[in-house]
Amino acid sequence: MRKLKLTELNRSTIAEYKNIPKLDVVVVLDNLRSAGNVGSFFRTSDALAVKEIILCGISSFPPNKEITKTAIGATESVKWKHEKCIKDAVSALKKQGYQIVGVEQTNHSISLEKYIPDGPLALVFGNEVNGLSDAILSDLDLAVEIPQYGTKHSFNVAVCGGIVLWEVFRKLKL
Amino acid sequence: MRKLKLTELNRSTIAEYKNIPKLDVVVVLDNLRSAGNVGSFFRTSDALAVKEIILCGISSFPPNKEITKTAIGATESVKWKHEKCIKDAVSALKKQGYQIVGVEQTNHSISLEKYIPDGPLALVFGNEVNGLSDAILSDLDLAVEIPQYGTKHSFNVAVCGGIVLWEVFRKLKL
Repeated sequence: MRKLKLTELNRSTIAEYKNIPKLDVVVVLDNLRSAGNVGSFFRTSDALAVKEIILCGISSFPPNKEITKTAIGATESVKWKHEKCIKDAVSALKKQGYQIVGVEQTNHSISLEKYIPDGPLALVFGNEVNGLSDAILSDLDLAVEIPQYGTKHSFNVAVCGGIVLWEVFRKLKL
Repeated sequence: MRKLKLTELNRSTIAEYKNIPKLDVVVVLDNLRSAGNVGSFFRTSDALAVKEIILCGISSFPPNKEITKTAIGATESVKWKHEKCIKDAVSALKKQGYQIVGVEQTNHSISLEKYIPDGPLALVFGNEVNGLSDAILSDLDLAVEIPQYGTKHSFNVAVCGGIVLWEVFRKLKL
């Protein structure tokens, strides 16, 4: 067994990537405080062909040195925009037919394992300490949570993003 | 819909956590250069009931300020040890009946989606830049990779850990 060389990975150029099919999934980041986590969402979204990232509230946006470090170039391939008010961003997505799904531990959350994604989908991830803004909870069509054990019941938000995007990618298929 | 309070999450105390059933899965970290990534593996392993983490080579180990920051306490709940030589660690795991599975893009990797975990399992994750050490490739029983698109074909190792551990957790069930 040997590791593949970079030239064997079939990586797209940025121009090619713009034209490949994408998941009809938009990632909405609600007040992320860490630019490193924002960059990590770019890197994961590049790998799993996410359609767009919307950076809301205090979330950092490119150009930003810390984002560049963890995105390793994916800010050039993944479509993104900054929206100061997340409620405006979500309202516009709803008008375009997106189902708004918050990733949060709530009294009505369904387990990620049982969640069947269907149709255009906006996944909302919240702040590292406080989770989703209370103001956005009433705008959600659904909340999903990762079933978990442990002393913390808490994932790093970029790790949580990887798990949820993988599960959606796996179930929707490209 | 409302967010759950911390008291509603059914979090285990550290003493309780030590006694809950675990996945028979050992995480082996091969020369991770970032202590932040090591800490993130602790946090994820706490949430997904991983049996043990073995920190090999140059991987940082507790007590370490950067690990503490990203592990948010999970170094106290998750069993771990440091082994300077990964080949010794893997050899001991083999003797205990563990299947050794590398997470790497190789010429013989199978897709994570198709991978069916079975029995005691050691998952080996590699360095942020170089991936798995060449010296360990010949000791693997199997390599798995996350199918991916994009311009990079690369996940942050802690995000990759989250995805692979979630998939194994989901398929093995506790």
